[in-house]
Amino acid sequence: MKSIVCHGPKDVRVEEQPSPVASSNQVLIRVSAGGICGSDLHYYNNGGFGDIRLREPMILGHEIAGHVSVVGDEVTGLNVQDLVAINPSRPCGNCKFCRAAMFNQCLDMRYYGSAMRFPHVQGAFSQELVVDASQCFRLSSDTTPQHAAFAEPLAVALAAINKLGKLIGKRVLVTGTGPIGALVVAAAKMHGALEVVATDVNDNALKRAKAVGADKTINVATEASELEAYSADKGYFDAVIEASGNEMALRSALNVLQPRGRLILLGLGGDVNLPLNQLVAKEIKISGNFRFHEEFAWAVKLISDRRIPLDPLLTGVFPIDEAITAFETANDRQQSMKVQLSF
Amino acid sequence: MKSIVCHGPKDVRVEEQPSPVASSNQVLIRVSAGGICGSDLHYYNNGGFGDIRLREPMILGHEIAGHVSVVGDEVTGLNVQDLVAINPSRPCGNCKFCRAAMFNQCLDMRYYGSAMRFPHVQGAFSQELVVDASQCFRLSSDTTPQHAAFAEPLAVALAAINKLGKLIGKRVLVTGTGPIGALVVAAAKMHGALEVVATDVNDNALKRAKAVGADKTINVATEASELEAYSADKGYFDAVIEASGNEMALRSALNVLQPRGRLILLGLGGDVNLPLNQLVAKEIKISGNFRFHEEFAWAVKLISDRRIPLDPLLTGVFPIDEAITAFETANDRQQSMKVQLSF
Amino acid sequence: MKSIVCHGPKDVRVEEQPSPVASSNQVLIRVSAGGICGSDLHYYNNGGFGDIRLREPMILGHEIAGHVSVVGDEVTGLNVQDLVAINPSRPCGNCKFCRAAMFNQCLDMRYYGSAMRFPHVQGAFSQELVVDASQCFRLSSDTTPQHAAFAEPLAVALAAINKLGKLIGKRVLVTGTGPIGALVVAAAKMHGALEVVATDVNDNALKRAKAVGADKTINVATEASELEAYSADKGYFDAVIEASGNEMALRSALNVLQPRGRLILLGLGGDVNLPLNQLVAKEIKISGNFRFHEEFAWAVKLISDRRIPLDPLLTGVFPIDEAITAFETANDRQQSMKVQLSF
Amino acid sequence: MKSIVCHGPKDVRVEEQPSPVASSNQVLIRVSAGGICGSDLHYYNNGGFGDIRLREPMILGHEIAGHVSVVGDEVTGLNVQDLVAINPSRPCGNCKFCRAAMFNQCLDMRYYGSAMRFPHVQGAFSQELVVDASQCFRLSSDTTPQHAAFAEPLAVALAAINKLGKLIGKRVLVTGTGPIGALVVAAAKMHGALEVVATDVNDNALKRAKAVGADKTINVATEASELEAYSADKGYFDAVIEASGNEMALRSALNVLQPRGRLILLGLGGDVNLPLNQLVAKEIKISGNFRFHEEFAWAVKLISDRRIPLDPLLTGVFPIDEAITAFETANDRQQSMKVQLSF
Repeated sequence: MKSIVCHGPKDVRVEEQPSPVASSNQVLIRVSAGGICGSDLHYYNNGGFGDIRLREPMILGHEIAGHVSVVGDEVTGLNVQDLVAINPSRPCGNCKFCRAAMFNQCLDMRYYGSAMRFPHVQGAFSQELVVDASQCFRLSSDTTPQHAAFAEPLAVALAAINKLGKLIGKRVLVTGTGPIGALVVAAAKMHGALEVVATDVNDNALKRAKAVGADKTINVATEASELEAYSADKGYFDAVIEASGNEMALRSALNVLQPRGRLILLGLGGDVNLPLNQLVAKEIKISGNFRFHEEFAWAVKLISDRRIPLDPLLTGVFPIDEAITAFETANDRQQSMKVQLSF
Repeated sequence: MKSIVCHGPKDVRVEEQPSPVASSNQVLIRVSAGGICGSDLHYYNNGGFGDIRLREPMILGHEIAGHVSVVGDEVTGLNVQDLVAINPSRPCGNCKFCRAAMFNQCLDMRYYGSAMRFPHVQGAFSQELVVDASQCFRLSSDTTPQHAAFAEPLAVALAAINKLGKLIGKRVLVTGTGPIGALVVAAAKMHGALEVVATDVNDNALKRAKAVGADKTINVATEASELEAYSADKGYFDAVIEASGNEMALRSALNVLQPRGRLILLGLGGDVNLPLNQLVAKEIKISGNFRFHEEFAWAVKLISDRRIPLDPLLTGVFPIDEAITAFETANDRQQSMKVQLSF
Repeated sequence: MKSIVCHGPKDVRVEEQPSPVASSNQVLIRVSAGGICGSDLHYYNNGGFGDIRLREPMILGHEIAGHVSVVGDEVTGLNVQDLVAINPSRPCGNCKFCRAAMFNQCLDMRYYGSAMRFPHVQGAFSQELVVDASQCFRLSSDTTPQHAAFAEPLAVALAAINKLGKLIGKRVLVTGTGPIGALVVAAAKMHGALEVVATDVNDNALKRAKAVGADKTINVATEASELEAYSADKGYFDAVIEASGNEMALRSALNVLQPRGRLILLGLGGDVNLPLNQLVAKEIKISGNFRFHEEFAWAVKLISDRRIPLDPLLTGVFPIDEAITAFETANDRQQSMKVQLSF
Repeated sequence: MKSIVCHGPKDVRVEEQPSPVASSNQVLIRVSAGGICGSDLHYYNNGGFGDIRLREPMILGHEIAGHVSVVGDEVTGLNVQDLVAINPSRPCGNCKFCRAAMFNQCLDMRYYGSAMRFPHVQGAFSQELVVDASQCFRLSSDTTPQHAAFAEPLAVALAAINKLGKLIGKRVLVTGTGPIGALVVAAAKMHGALEVVATDVNDNALKRAKAVGADKTINVATEASELEAYSADKGYFDAVIEASGNEMALRSALNVLQPRGRLILLGLGGDVNLPLNQLVAKEIKISGNFRFHEEFAWAVKLISDRRIPLDPLLTGVFPIDEAITAFETANDRQQSMKVQLSF
């Protein structure tokens, strides 16, 4: 079987690997669809990000759906041919955070396709994959593998919504409408936000955000004053979900948030310069959000029930042998939203 | 009667003013004690802070207690000779924030001794003061005016504790133990924090923080490694209350906070540089806190009931005619905690 | 102009009344649609409910929409011909609860068509109505008056959802699918509940609950075991909204709620017998909900945006002169859901 | 070694048992002090309670402190002679509730001295006890075993306070001042409640509640009108903790709670008749509380730090051979608060 292995910056190879074998409490998956994430692109383009560097070849990928191929003897509740989304998150279950049900903060996390540990945790862009039964979440039979492979990024978006709390009556701003930000827009609307406004510097991305539920979009590169208008009387929005990792976006969010408004940080980045007086005087409430846990199962059910629009966000599907083209297409953020591979 | 009037940097004068007269729904107060706050010192030293500058002479002061001298005909519940703390906060009652019971965010706030508006809102360092009955909070008869004049800064500390939420079982770090930080230490312990650690760069201040309830104090200028030890396994503290306005304090707080830990910002300052990745990955929850509202009444009751230790925090009382000496003493942060005036 | 006046049990009359005149800060409304509520039926059938009795003739009605007819000189933001929903709730704005922004708990509330006070607060089933500008909530121009008149009962349903908190990932049971329960079903789904199950003893009502969003319905008179199945392993539902006021419904809800699950009480009733041991051992969280406040504006926006399905819930519209027929039709709970009057 | 074994109603025997042996990951405890709980009395008096009946002899007791006698080879952090409180709660760690960190709701709980399961879970009133290291919580060296044995009931009281949320500024009523209710009074005050009022029908119990922190006590048998006075303007208290299990207490609590006030149910009992209209109209928030989890460690630290007054609550200590006298003394609720055994 073939896997997509990253050896360093701009050095991704489709390599033949031995097929894995499922033990009695495991499941063999024939992978069908895999989405390319921003972190995959970081490995592809730069061999890592921040302090994290590839130190050995690593299979990429963690947004995966496939069909059950072999079911271990001890596994119940799964059948051959089931379409499942694979949860790439494998907390240890034993550390102080796991025992407190804060699994995403596990001290010994093994997350697919991450070079944070050494040896690296291999990813899931392979034609076959052995997983624990608990990683498999079954979708309704009329779901496509492409939709199913949105479960992981949708889980991230849902985790941000979950951190935000109830959305009833809330006016929400989403800054940054890449794949995660656009899913946040869709999820915010689906969970009852009264109004969702989205900003980006890319008109294509904004158009897609509108297609999945934004009531209004603003290109902050060309229409900055439209956002600033929301700062009157100490601000308009009850909540902002920041999905760009951009300091300017963050600072403008503080201007348009109401006093005691909530700001969820999803976008990663380096140091950001923030106005302490404004945080204090407006009593802004900030929460970071990191990955997800229980939200994966919810994402799968919402996808199964077709309650989240996904089609506007899928901008390309490439066969595994065209992996390089897929990565380069995903790199073109002006044109592309989510790019997937088929196996 | 005399008032303490600031005309500009280092130009504070004790001036004779006409005695005010209470109307039928007001109360005349013979002021007994007034605490000097950090903002009073900013006007005294620099004629303002940030963008805010004195544009006309302004009476300073907003931490005030006194005895009721005249009670207007329509006022009920107050008697001549009552010792009262005066709430210096006068929200409009009519704006969208007042109608939402977010009075400290009032769009038309008049807060004693503030040059934010023009004409400035005159302060309360006067021998006589006319106030609304609703600004008066009566203390028990055995309370001293000096203790009563702690109601305002204690209200700020209580507002921070109130924002933090329940303290049961919580390990709390307080960074910065000036008068507000020290009151936060006392209030955190009084509201049940399991453990309170306090940091500062001033051993005198730390000694007083210990006297009012800190379980442990760390001088971060000389014992930085003791604080860093708390960063193991992603951090130790459930909550940090930041009362220094210092970027270094803020960044070190993020290191020792547990994932999903809470950080309350009380200290004002300019821009601060914060590590976005850490905020996201540890899912830190930040809330600013600005002044107080209902907490003023609570502060008065706790002071009346002697549940907060105040004596270690009062480092000097000067008669009104020695106002300059009082301000200079308060300026010496190496030696002084709270300095008060007597009228 | 004509009004619908209740003189006692089964004594409702359509009476000619003088047209009201709007003062400079008021608005004259030409009423278009009015929904009959359960409390209107109590007055119609019994002349009151519980301890509350009619002591003078009272105009019924509080679910009202109409068109602006005259706009007072001092009123801004409203124009003649605007379709508006009328908020029947008029808190005093001055009592301790209003000052704490708990307006629905006002100590001096005047709510349309209520005999709780004497003189009674007259209702709104009149052809013309003078209201304060602040009671008027404008709808989009393509909204029908019939939809607009759902604003009040939808606000009640939204208030229950608001009390419940975030619905993301939640499995919700709604017991009782009269007009309010059915709107709760629709609102719970629209605010993101993962799954909504509804129970009643009336198949017609359940059919309509399904039409507005229930994933599953159970007739507890004929299919009780289907509900009981949810009690395995200490219960299935994260939340129950009780909209029947029925003790049996309440007790069965406790069986199928998960430990620490939430139960919102909307249905009114007399004394109910509850199992204290179960409340304690399962750590059930109960909250009552009474009317609404800010939710009225949200209801109007959701109706304007067509985000709540209303058509399946409207089972009849009768002209004012057929008021008796309208009340009798509304009385037939086996067949009717919401019955409205046209003016 | 000797144990206190219950064979049926009024049939408790002090019996010789073989000494237990600790395995490598266990600890042998020489038991020093054990408190008699209400459930021990139910077994002693009636051979069970509710549906639960003794079906075989069972050692009683679950409020235990002792000294470490033997430390298994694999155990770290404990030394011979350490004074430890023993957590009697042993959740399975594996069920859906344990995995969600809701350990007190474990589907397979083994709690000392409980006949809920068969074979019964033997209790801890023995001279020697083998426990898991994780059940041992060390106290400061100057703590007495008698104080240490309050860890379990204090943990229950803390769990109620924890459910209640922040106490800052809150006025709290505690109904029922048996041992648990009195500890709730002390814990509420220690966690910052502005005011704590306690009710009971027993003046002795009320006197002790006052000794541990109640600001005011009311004997509802003889001074009922004093409590009723708190019902003006829809009620006075922000929160009630109900520790009597008595329907009258519960109903009177609803009268004196403010709208949206919180009611924590600690007291067990059969069915109670509650006024549904009042729950709805006042939007009361009720939560049950069952046992504890993380609160055990907190109780141990607070006892170690002498932050909770315990001496007024200990009304007798009897040697193991006088177990019958101890149980009979505990039965006399008119005179006794907590009765302990020494081993």
